[in-house]
Amino acid sequence: MTSGNVPRKAVILTAGLGTRMGGRPKALLRVGGREIIWRNIKMLQECGVQEFILVINPKFGPQIMEFLEREGFKFRHVTNAHPEKGNGYSLYLAKDFINEEFILIMGDHVYEEEFIKEAVRAKGLVGDPEPEFVDISEATKVRVKNGRVERIGKELTDFDCIDTGFFVLTPEIFRHAEEIVREKEEVSLSEIMEKARVEVTLVSGKFWMDVDTEEELERANREIIRRSIKSGEDGFISRHLNRKISIRITEKVINSLTPNQASLISFLAGTMSFLLIFFSKPVAGIFFQLSSILDGIDGEIARAKMMGSPFGGWIDSNLDRIVDFLFLLGLAYTSSLDTTGWVLFSLAAFGSYMVSYTSERYRGAFGRSIFQDYPVLRKIPGKRDERIFLIMLFLIFDAVLELFVLLAVLSLTRVVLTLILVWRKPI
Amino acid sequence: MTSGNVPRKAVILTAGLGTRMGGRPKALLRVGGREIIWRNIKMLQECGVQEFILVINPKFGPQIMEFLEREGFKFRHVTNAHPEKGNGYSLYLAKDFINEEFILIMGDHVYEEEFIKEAVRAKGLVGDPEPEFVDISEATKVRVKNGRVERIGKELTDFDCIDTGFFVLTPEIFRHAEEIVREKEEVSLSEIMEKARVEVTLVSGKFWMDVDTEEELERANREIIRRSIKSGEDGFISRHLNRKISIRITEKVINSLTPNQASLISFLAGTMSFLLIFFSKPVAGIFFQLSSILDGIDGEIARAKMMGSPFGGWIDSNLDRIVDFLFLLGLAYTSSLDTTGWVLFSLAAFGSYMVSYTSERYRGAFGRSIFQDYPVLRKIPGKRDERIFLIMLFLIFDAVLELFVLLAVLSLTRVVLTLILVWRKPI
Repeated sequence: MTSGNVPRKAVILTAGLGTRMGGRPKALLRVGGREIIWRNIKMLQECGVQEFILVINPKFGPQIMEFLEREGFKFRHVTNAHPEKGNGYSLYLAKDFINEEFILIMGDHVYEEEFIKEAVRAKGLVGDPEPEFVDISEATKVRVKNGRVERIGKELTDFDCIDTGFFVLTPEIFRHAEEIVREKEEVSLSEIMEKARVEVTLVSGKFWMDVDTEEELERANREIIRRSIKSGEDGFISRHLNRKISIRITEKVINSLTPNQASLISFLAGTMSFLLIFFSKPVAGIFFQLSSILDGIDGEIARAKMMGSPFGGWIDSNLDRIVDFLFLLGLAYTSSLDTTGWVLFSLAAFGSYMVSYTSERYRGAFGRSIFQDYPVLRKIPGKRDERIFLIMLFLIFDAVLELFVLLAVLSLTRVVLTLILVWRKPI
Repeated sequence: MTSGNVPRKAVILTAGLGTRMGGRPKALLRVGGREIIWRNIKMLQECGVQEFILVINPKFGPQIMEFLEREGFKFRHVTNAHPEKGNGYSLYLAKDFINEEFILIMGDHVYEEEFIKEAVRAKGLVGDPEPEFVDISEATKVRVKNGRVERIGKELTDFDCIDTGFFVLTPEIFRHAEEIVREKEEVSLSEIMEKARVEVTLVSGKFWMDVDTEEELERANREIIRRSIKSGEDGFISRHLNRKISIRITEKVINSLTPNQASLISFLAGTMSFLLIFFSKPVAGIFFQLSSILDGIDGEIARAKMMGSPFGGWIDSNLDRIVDFLFLLGLAYTSSLDTTGWVLFSLAAFGSYMVSYTSERYRGAFGRSIFQDYPVLRKIPGKRDERIFLIMLFLIFDAVLELFVLLAVLSLTRVVLTLILVWRKPI
């Protein structure tokens, strides 16, 4: 929860008729498992915005308001009985609710959290000089002069940035809006911004897009999920293999699974791979690697749906530890080990365990991620995704003892390096 | 760091001549490994007090100021060239530094943190209705009427509380002080408080004492150390055996060992007990229990000295996990186990590990102690101190396999209960 110089109020335009998306209100389309308008309001709230004014149309308005009320959001609304008069007219209708600086946002544009966090502190029109996910031919272009809007429109060929549909405005804007409304039947936001010559603030490299087709909806969904990965804590295999597959699965299941259900499924897959050891070690190893891929899904769903919880993280870590131990114990048990073999198994299991313990205990003590304080740890191998991949490889060649040696060396080296690193240079 | 309605300034009286403590300034006596005045200033700072005014005498003042400067404290001072004029005169000398509500505290009284936290929000004289550690015959008694001081003095027989040497006063007090100073040669604080009829706030059940003899110094030292134990996280054996011994040791070594040195010593003792397994299991078990007692000392030193650090807790936990694993592995290795025996060892080691992991990972996720959120976990056995005591008992009877079974059952039961508890009723 931050605030500072973030406006207290936001006007959300949802009066568009969204004709190309099969008659559904675009604001209620789901991206990353959540309705677009839900995401936008939630993210603005987390930035400190406290009051929301919805401009609705008679056709979709009731449906949108009923949804937001059911989700527990507080807001006021004004109805644009003539949506055909354009989004400039919709903005104009919000004038009675505003007497201070405010945010204006499209209820049907998809923004990632990082975009919103930056944009709430902007002034005027938020423009993106190099939008990655926007169909330029359809986009509203902005030509900037001395930091202010000079020209704005879809047909501009010489332009500096694209209008992101996010504005931070003063009540002054309504004076300009009123003048145009008096003169014309149909009023676009662009005309008002051009007439008011509002400031332009550039935000780039952050994901946002306007969703107009099923294809764009799918792309927005994928990008929001992809951005929900805490990449800082992923190991090599996770970054280059597991995540590529898991986000494809998450895209499909995000609307039907809760994070806890996904945790349970990956735990069951892990347990299943343990049981498979008693039939075929190579199959068990492959299955274990599959369960490691599934293990990413709960977190992806939770973060994309903006419902990450400390409980989810806690239970997931504990189940991972149990599965890891069971699997190694199963391998040891079925391999007729001598004393040396059992000692090697013990060191491998202990080392695997300690890799997690040193970093989790660090968060408990310092309240921060150890990877944030010691980024070099990201590059040292031995993390869970890497260990499980090695387990699969070695089991394909039935090399259990060699596997134990490698796991023990890898993980204990990582643990010793962690201890030395923190001991020598405590934060 | 709290503040709110805590006064910004504190006057600290250190002009007493402390004749009974061998000519040393009492404020510089060490209690819980720290000079009394260091503790008092540090605790006040942590409550939000920002400015300190010292009243010193010519004899001890330079020594006290040099010490505080060396420790990096910022303060102003005024010299009482006539300490024989009494502590009321010392207070009077601070008048030019005060124009708002302020704290008045004796530089040589020992207070525990909980006392200070409550007292900084009091009004007037802080009185203790039932002081546990104070020699009543020597104490300054206070008779209260309508919430204000009626009579005050050492000779009162009918009184309501004892003067703790801690006051929260308004500048008004200097007017009364001045009147008495004009009339009399020697002025005590008590006279001023009585004349001003200051309010009385009662604080009870918190440790504080005035230290006048070597015996009282020892007692204060013991009490401050005893109160530094985070008793909520101790198991049964720790509460009833280990702590009783460890605080005796801490009392002796607190002035000569850092917490990290103490951690290292207990780690070495743990490693030593592992090596002893190869000579005699019963001896190793007894030594392991001894190392478990030593394991409490680092935390006691750190907290009593007000130098507890996340790093210290982190490294200590990691070393504990290593020692626990090594010891069990040593037992397994020297016991010619069959496969069943090794599986039992694995479950015992894994369970022991998970007891710690579930609770440490909880703190990482929630930022709180799991024992705070689920107090029932304090009563479920299986914590480290209890496990090590059982290890010692079973090794005396050379019952390694039975030990593994018991440890596995105890610790895994605890882990499963923890998972169920948090799963069913997440905070």
